[in-house]
Amino acid sequence: MVIDEVKCRENIAAMALRIRRAGLQFRPHFKTHQSLRIGEWFREEGVEAITVSSFAMALYFVRTGWKNITVAIPFSPLEIDAIHAVAANAKLNLVTATVEAVEGLGPLLRYPVSLWIKVDAGYGRAGVPPAEAETIYKILETAARFPHISIAGLLGHAGQSYQARNQKDILKVHENSMAIVKQLRESYSSAIPNLKISMGDTPTCSLATSWPGVDELRPGNFAFYDLQQSQITSCTDAQIAVALACPIIDVRRDRSEVIVHGGSVHFSKDWLKDEEGQLTFGYVAEKKSDGWGSVNRQARMRSLSQEHGILQVPSAELNQYKPGGWVYILPVHSCLAAESMAHYHGLSGKSYDHFKTGYRQ
Amino acid sequence: MVIDEVKCRENIAAMALRIRRAGLQFRPHFKTHQSLRIGEWFREEGVEAITVSSFAMALYFVRTGWKNITVAIPFSPLEIDAIHAVAANAKLNLVTATVEAVEGLGPLLRYPVSLWIKVDAGYGRAGVPPAEAETIYKILETAARFPHISIAGLLGHAGQSYQARNQKDILKVHENSMAIVKQLRESYSSAIPNLKISMGDTPTCSLATSWPGVDELRPGNFAFYDLQQSQITSCTDAQIAVALACPIIDVRRDRSEVIVHGGSVHFSKDWLKDEEGQLTFGYVAEKKSDGWGSVNRQARMRSLSQEHGILQVPSAELNQYKPGGWVYILPVHSCLAAESMAHYHGLSGKSYDHFKTGYRQ
Repeated sequence: MVIDEVKCRENIAAMALRIRRAGLQFRPHFKTHQSLRIGEWFREEGVEAITVSSFAMALYFVRTGWKNITVAIPFSPLEIDAIHAVAANAKLNLVTATVEAVEGLGPLLRYPVSLWIKVDAGYGRAGVPPAEAETIYKILETAARFPHISIAGLLGHAGQSYQARNQKDILKVHENSMAIVKQLRESYSSAIPNLKISMGDTPTCSLATSWPGVDELRPGNFAFYDLQQSQITSCTDAQIAVALACPIIDVRRDRSEVIVHGGSVHFSKDWLKDEEGQLTFGYVAEKKSDGWGSVNRQARMRSLSQEHGILQVPSAELNQYKPGGWVYILPVHSCLAAESMAHYHGLSGKSYDHFKTGYRQ
Repeated sequence: MVIDEVKCRENIAAMALRIRRAGLQFRPHFKTHQSLRIGEWFREEGVEAITVSSFAMALYFVRTGWKNITVAIPFSPLEIDAIHAVAANAKLNLVTATVEAVEGLGPLLRYPVSLWIKVDAGYGRAGVPPAEAETIYKILETAARFPHISIAGLLGHAGQSYQARNQKDILKVHENSMAIVKQLRESYSSAIPNLKISMGDTPTCSLATSWPGVDELRPGNFAFYDLQQSQITSCTDAQIAVALACPIIDVRRDRSEVIVHGGSVHFSKDWLKDEEGQLTFGYVAEKKSDGWGSVNRQARMRSLSQEHGILQVPSAELNQYKPGGWVYILPVHSCLAAESMAHYHGLSGKSYDHFKTGYRQ
């Protein structure tokens, strides 16, 4: 996985500026890059609070001095040892949607933690749905029994923004999801006047300009962006900051296909549907002396097996591909490709760490 | 990822016995488990030659004394440094389907290597197709110019066996793919009388009993098996030797769903279609004191996002799931789940290494 540091830093700076201007706390999700080194680029933009997706990942960042961390997946009391380890060294914000988890955790805690109550902001995956708002009361009551737990507020994730296909629809998701969460807060405002609201998926954060009533935003993917974000219009192709450099292992003229060493162990297996409805796992990008250029949507990765990828290429372009050469392919979902590769090279050959494998050559 | 060592060792022993009885060389593909420790279980069954899917993985196994390794993806001359590193320490067997790769590699080699010519045994992915058999001649001629290259033979992979849905169809693939490769060998028998044949995907190796004219077999997945193999009848559910232990983070009674911490970063994203044609990413298996038992195909992982999995569960069974608990889920494709988790725990808590992350706690 090759990272274009300039593009990545520009993405980070642009999002930091946008959120700072709107007056919100920027708590970027580090599950996308999972890198101490890339984390430093956020720090240079004034970021001090972060989001991660596991306690082990939190500990990785605690090492280099991150002191304010939200683990944005509902915790399990089974993870108590890891919770202790993080909470002993940083301000730890937990997320839950169930009374049972809080009841299980409360008696085990040794250090203070903050608790976000996850609410379903219309995505329909996890979180308390508005129709069961009494669960929020029960969580608040339960949490109040444990002195180590303080309440942060309501946390939502408008993942339905990924179903949108244009800016108008993304902004509609933005409005609706904020309205759901704010209405929930309204119902508790007499009992608990200071509930904060945390939101933030990459599509809405990339396109919205104001978040009235929201306190913090947690986008992650925007640091790299990818073909999926470009397809749903939350970024341009030029903002995509990572690509996979794949060796060409065969050119099949009979089928107008190029076979590359780049499969599901490298890209993972998220797909998009192209304009003709065909499953697509990546597109080739133009190779330039200083990175990659425009995206060639005619050169489509049409299938992935474990180690092989098959590119469907216009026959007139086949001559550009030679066994023994290599090609840039942009990923459909950069978070999963980064997780799969677990390491980065800069355009100038520098090496960047990833949580999963740490520093390596 | 939890591994049932007893089941895994039984799978290895059964395959070793089957191949030994048929009088062939057993060269198991280690890309499935990628573990030094699990590799030792193969060694105890008399295995001395192995297959891997990258040069870095080959080096991982060279460390613990594996001396005869096939890297079963067509090489790129760009990988010359890694080729040197392996070939200096082990008998290295390379795979190619192009003249260009051999021309590029030949002048760079410092140590002897063996070369398998990859032929398309009907899968239609990589390899020289029978209709272009003259490419084989050209590869043989080119290789002959370089003293470090000796010719091993023809290597095929009948990946189309994964499209089969019953034993009869798998055995048909077995017959057809062997026939294609043997006919290719026949055409070269006067020029090169000793070309060997290497075959071996898990479905055909699990069901066939004889491989007339074939010299070695390279199955890999069979060590773990998975739901995909069970669906296409190459194993039983009881032979599946790995499962993911996923914390339950929410139970959504309104939707009859259970939300687990187990997403595409854990399972990867291969799917199967269940009997009703629904995309399925895993099934729950019964929790027993000594591992897992029968597979509950009514408790289906219906979707995966990065960290979350959503189980569709019959409402009558919902009471068995509690937030704070955990559940065994069998993977659709164990190779990719193992690659994603990059670590194993035994049923008794032992820890097993994986190439991607080495030994860790």
